[in-house]
Parts: sequence; structure tokens; C-alpha cells
Amino acid sequence: MTYARRLVAEGLGTALLLAAVVGSGIMGERLAGGNVAIALLANALATGAALLALILAFGPISGAHFNPAVTLGDAAQGGLPWREVPGYVALQVIGAFAGVIVAHLMFGEPVLAASTKVRSGLPQGFSEFIATFGLLAVIWGCSRARLESVPAAVAAYITAAYWFTASTSFANPAVTLARSATDTFAGIQPADVPMFVVAQLLGAAAATLVFGWLAPRGGRQ
Amino acid sequence: MTYARRLVAEGLGTALLLAAVVGSGIMGERLAGGNVAIALLANALATGAALLALILAFGPISGAHFNPAVTLGDAAQGGLPWREVPGYVALQVIGAFAGVIVAHLMFGEPVLAASTKVRSGLPQGFSEFIATFGLLAVIWGCSRARLESVPAAVAAYITAAYWFTASTSFANPAVTLARSATDTFAGIQPADVPMFVVAQLLGAAAATLVFGWLAPRGGRQ
Amino acid sequence: MTYARRLVAEGLGTALLLAAVVGSGIMGERLAGGNVAIALLANALATGAALLALILAFGPISGAHFNPAVTLGDAAQGGLPWREVPGYVALQVIGAFAGVIVAHLMFGEPVLAASTKVRSGLPQGFSEFIATFGLLAVIWGCSRARLESVPAAVAAYITAAYWFTASTSFANPAVTLARSATDTFAGIQPADVPMFVVAQLLGAAAATLVFGWLAPRGGRQ
Amino acid sequence: MTYARRLVAEGLGTALLLAAVVGSGIMGERLAGGNVAIALLANALATGAALLALILAFGPISGAHFNPAVTLGDAAQGGLPWREVPGYVALQVIGAFAGVIVAHLMFGEPVLAASTKVRSGLPQGFSEFIATFGLLAVIWGCSRARLESVPAAVAAYITAAYWFTASTSFANPAVTLARSATDTFAGIQPADVPMFVVAQLLGAAAATLVFGWLAPRGGRQ
Repeated sequence: MTYARRLVAEGLGTALLLAAVVGSGIMGERLAGGNVAIALLANALATGAALLALILAFGPISGAHFNPAVTLGDAAQGGLPWREVPGYVALQVIGAFAGVIVAHLMFGEPVLAASTKVRSGLPQGFSEFIATFGLLAVIWGCSRARLESVPAAVAAYITAAYWFTASTSFANPAVTLARSATDTFAGIQPADVPMFVVAQLLGAAAATLVFGWLAPRGGRQ
Repeated sequence: MTYARRLVAEGLGTALLLAAVVGSGIMGERLAGGNVAIALLANALATGAALLALILAFGPISGAHFNPAVTLGDAAQGGLPWREVPGYVALQVIGAFAGVIVAHLMFGEPVLAASTKVRSGLPQGFSEFIATFGLLAVIWGCSRARLESVPAAVAAYITAAYWFTASTSFANPAVTLARSATDTFAGIQPADVPMFVVAQLLGAAAATLVFGWLAPRGGRQ
Repeated sequence: MTYARRLVAEGLGTALLLAAVVGSGIMGERLAGGNVAIALLANALATGAALLALILAFGPISGAHFNPAVTLGDAAQGGLPWREVPGYVALQVIGAFAGVIVAHLMFGEPVLAASTKVRSGLPQGFSEFIATFGLLAVIWGCSRARLESVPAAVAAYITAAYWFTASTSFANPAVTLARSATDTFAGIQPADVPMFVVAQLLGAAAATLVFGWLAPRGGRQ
Repeated sequence: MTYARRLVAEGLGTALLLAAVVGSGIMGERLAGGNVAIALLANALATGAALLALILAFGPISGAHFNPAVTLGDAAQGGLPWREVPGYVALQVIGAFAGVIVAHLMFGEPVLAASTKVRSGLPQGFSEFIATFGLLAVIWGCSRARLESVPAAVAAYITAAYWFTASTSFANPAVTLARSATDTFAGIQPADVPMFVVAQLLGAAAATLVFGWLAPRGGRQ
């Protein structure tokens, strides 16, 4: 696969992922009649199911990272060459914002809007650390021994983490940035983005270090 | 597989799919006590699960398109011969109406009834464009590299798209036509059908063009 | 596998299946606060998930029929020898009642109790015909081409059919008999059992005939 | 894999499992507005999905037992050497408590707190016997014939068993111990722990005995 094709795949896949995250949040909140648990159930199931479909479809093209934390961790282990990282991250961020716009147009919302949803405080930050640590633990664990289990494992993990972390598990810096531009169910106020991103990168680094010892990459080849 | 067998498989599979879509909509609405989110949750899970079962069962016989947009896209890429397309589409449409009738008989509804459910406006049309673009992106992406992942990917995608598009993702002209003949949860008033079908065909064409470049079909063999 | 082992597997698996069907119905109804849709959502997800686990676990031992309609259809196609059918059916029925008893003991209900739940009328009977036709269509379709897809396909189908048939898809004579002995969410009054069983056997016969032509068994070997 | 790596994998995996069980219970209860069925739906889906992800990720490293009942049953059948059992069990218990602490920190709860949730009475004990019997039946059944089906089967089984047992299926002594240290949705008062653990060990022993005859381990190699 050429670099250009892989970049387009990352951008397109991340856009569809964000459309799913933000769109299902809007739909869930509109229909749930005020019961937040039902809205989150819809949001979590839709996000997990979309992830499964998108990783299966785009994985063979670009690896289906859709997530700068995954791209950085992969490069740190000698996977993706470092010179390709900026392109991957750029397309993930661009795709993420495009996906938010698509969701807004589908639901008749303003094209973009700064979120007013407060997600501050240490428990939220710690939640993002754990969410991203767990996500990368699952990815590195699966990709060492049975690469074909990654799509189901990632989809299942995120579905679960929407519920078991206090932050509903963003676990992805590109997703976090773009979700600051939607004033709907899935939003996050811009002021809380830096703490989320720092916690995510720390969680990703921790998981990558632990699995570098626990399941060395050489074991796969 | 002979052409006759494949046609019967397309008709039978599409009938069971529509029975699942319309039937679970009726059941969901009847039981949900006015909470539309719970009804849609049931409808989305039942549709996705039915799709998984039906694609696994009928895929080896006819390819399990159940959808003229898929059939046209497949033919455009040199898959199904063009001379077989009319039969596929005809059986999909006939099967879809048969499935609506089956659902109505199971739930004691009139055999067929014009829907009164309004689904008009640009956001609805744009939703169908995105829904079908995403569906065909997932199918072409999976079928290039790992054909056996198509059933799970399509089922998961549709479950998600019920929630993340404003139109609840019909994404299928035969399904759209037949759903205009049920005045229940899953219906669409006949006047809105043309916009839906046009948007679906445009979305399918866009995805087929993009993936013709992104993951050329020759790469699979 | 010896015949004795296969019989025990059929009995044990059917018992666990019924414990799941009846137990999750009781739990769902007790917790759902009167919202039947939420109770049925729990019941459908638990049944589908239990089926997946049990077919994966017992399939390699006995084939994991758990259902006289499947056993009869399999024998009619030259699968299971006819002389083994009575044993299979007997153990399925015994196991089904044992599973109801287990569910009752877990939830502090009377050991057995005749159901008072009315499930009469033609739409209910037609629902059982369709439910069983679809179930066997899925099984014969999958088992011709890719036997390993049967567990997921059957589990997904039943999860969907709980919602898309008016009868919540019993689709199994042994299950129907045993569910007449529980006066809880999953029950069926004894008077309605004969119509259910007849409709199920007709549906099974129809699916077996259709697939005998659509996907002849010889095609698998 | 070295013993040290396997121990760390057991501890880390069990910690993430408990974080999922306890965290999703807290989130479910907080959001569900008093509807216990919706809270349990979230709790069951999150637990099952987390199990799938974690068994896929850690299975190739340590076997992903996360459960002393599984470890003991495996050793009893000549799998894990007996001398490695104490380490496995110790790390499972330590990991379980660590996971509870992680969940509490994410949700701003006290680090640890004795549960006040009553789960006493014979039906609860019998439920745990059945829950663990079924869990080990599924594991032994799958691991004899198709080891790769264990992750999906276990995840599906536990999702179902949350609903079909009166105790919501702890089915794991390490999990039971640690859940006595959370005064939230998933808790169990310390006084009820001994009955749960005894019932679990009896259920595990019964399943191991039955499957020793039903599907002898030699059949796999």
C-alpha cells in the first residue's frame, strides 16, 4: 500500500469513526427522554460496532490506527517509520474534525460549535490514563500473538470502557480534539482537552513500556 | 451455484431481512412504553443480528447482497455479470415486499399499508448518502483483503448506523421501497422514497469510486 | 464420541439453555420495573449469548442440537442415524425440564408450575412457523459451506427473532414443552403448546425441503 | 513465556477485569435513574466485552485465567503444574483488589470500603454453584476441541449468566473477595463471601469431573 493510500484510509476511517461517536450521541440523547444510561448504552454500542466494522475494513490498508496514541506507540516499537508519523497524525486529526462536521450536518446541528461540557478533575484525568493504558495493552497483547483478533478486541474494549471509566473513555487525542468542537452529548469543553491528551499519552507510554517487557515484539515474527 | 438458486437465495434472504427490520420495529414500539430510544435499541440489535445470521447463511449461495446498491457496485467492478443484475434487483425488491407482508401477518397488521412516517429534508438525504457510502466502504474494504470478515463488519456497521445517522440508515433501495408499505415504526412515507434512493445510489457510487483507487480489486486475487 | 457421551451433552446443554432462557426472563421482569421492552432486551441478549457459549462448548461433542426440530431435520438429510433420534429427543426434553427446575431453584420459585401465559391465535402460530423456518434456514445454509459459522449465526438469529416474531421465537419443541412448566416471563400455557409444536415442525420441514434444493448437502463434502 | 511474565499478566488482566466490573456497576447505577435492569444491562455488557478483550490480549501470555477456580481446575487436569498454582492465585487476588482501587479512584469513591450489599440465602449459593459449573463446562468444552473459541464463549457466557443466575454470577473466588471491598453496585458484604466461594469451588469441581468423562483431555492433542 502506498503512503498516500494509507493516509487517505486513516483520514476516512477516523472521519467515519467520529461521525459514529458524535452522531450516535446526538441520536441517543434526543430519543432517550432524559435517561442518560440509555443514551450512553446506544452511544457505546454504536461506537463499538462502528469500530469493529472500520478496523476490519481499513486495517488491511493502513493498519486502522485512527488514533495518534496508537501511531506513536507503534513507531516507538519499530513498527511505523517515524517519518510517516506526522502524516498519520495529521490525517487522523483532519479526519476527526471532518467526521464531527458530517455528524452535525446529518442532524441539522451547526457545522462546528465549541463544547460546553465540563470534564475536569483528577478522576477524569486518571480515567483517561487507565482507558488509554488498557486500550494499548489490548492492542499490543493481541498484535503479538494473533493479529486477527485486534478488531474484535478493540471494539469490545471501547464498548466496555465507555462504561467503566468516569470519562467514558476518549482514549484518543485526535478524537478528544475534535469532540471539543461539538456542543452535544459527546462533547468536551476545550479547557479540559489538554489534561485529557496528557493523560492519554502517559497511559499509552506506560502500556507500551509494560508490554515491551511482557510480550516482546520479536516473539511475533 | 446456478443462477436460479442464487436468485431464490437473494429473494429469501431479503424477505427474512425485511421481516426482521419491520417485525422488530413493531415489537419494539409496542413494548417500549413510549421510549423511542429503547424501541430503536431493540430494532438496531435485531437488525444487526439478523444480518449477521443471514449473510453467513446465504453468502456462500448468492453473495448475500440483499441490496441493489451492493449489486450495482459489484457489477461496476467486474464482479457480478451485468446481465444478472436485473434478476438480482428484481428478487431483492420482491423479497423485500414479501418480508414486510410476513412481518404484518405475524403481528396481526394489515397485509400492506402506505406509511405515513415523514422522513424528508436535506439532513435525512445527506444521512442516507453517508449511510450508504459507509456501508459500501466497509464491504469493499473487507472484501479486498479478508472476505470472511464481511458478515460481522456489515452487521456491526448497520447496528451502528441505525444510531449515528439521522435517518436510521436505510442504505438500501429495495429496503426503502418496501418500508414505504408498512405504517409502523420502520415505515417511510412514499413521497420520501425517491430522495432516499437517489442519495443511496450516490453514496454507493462515491464509495465504489474511492475504493477503486484506495484498494484496487486486483489486489485480492 | 460415544452415543452415551453425546446424549449427556445434549441433555446438559439443553438444561443450561433453559436455565438461561427462564432465569433471565425472571431476572429481567423483576428488575425492569414494568417496562417489558427492557425485560425482553435482557432476555434476548442472555439467550443469544448463552446459545453462543453452549454451541461452541457442546458442538464438538454432540452437535449441540438442543432442539428436536434440528435433530429431525438432520436425520431427514442423512446426518444423524434415525435410530439415534429418539435418544436425542428424549434427552433434550428431559434436559429442558431440568433447566427450568434449576432456574426456579436459583430464583426461589416453585420447582415447577403450569404457566398461565396466553400465547394463542393464528399470528402466534404463524410466528412460530417463520421463526423455525428461519432458524433451520440459517443452520442448513451455514452448515453447507462453513460449519464453523453455525454458533454465531444461530445465536444472532435467535437474539433477533425474539424481537421480530410476535411469539418471541420459541422455535424448539423441547423448549416449548418445558416453558409450559414455568409461570414466569418465559412461560406458555399448556393449552397453547400443541399449536406451537405443530407450527415449528412445519417450519422445520419447509426449511429442510427448500435447502435440500437450494444448497444440496453433497456440496459440502 | 517465563513464569514471572505470566504472573504479571494474570495480575494485570484481573485488575483490568475488576476495574471493568466495579466501574461499570458504578456508572450504570449513577446514570440509570433507579432502573436496576438498565444498570445491570450496562454492567453485563461491559463485563462481557471487557472479558473478550482481556482474554484475547492476555490469553497468549498466561492463559488468561483471572480466576482461581479455573486455575485449580486446569491444574487438576494436568495443565498448569501444581507448583505454579499459588503464584497464579496470589496474583489474581492482588490484581482483583488493585482493580477495585482503580475503579474507586476513577469514580471518586473511597479507596476501599466494606460492602453492605446482602447476597445471602440458599438460592444465591445455588446460583453460584450453577454459574461456576456452567463457566467451567464452557471452558473445558471449548478448550478440548477449538481453543480459539474460548474468549468469545467465556465472554458470552458471563454476559448471559449476569442475567440468568439470581446472584448475577460472580463465578470467581478472587473476584468475590475483591468485590467485598466496594460499597457500590457490584459489592457483596464480607459475611456472604464464604458461601459464594464454597459454592464456586463445588461448581468448578463438578464441571471438571463431568468433562473429565464427557470430553477427555487426551482428545485434543
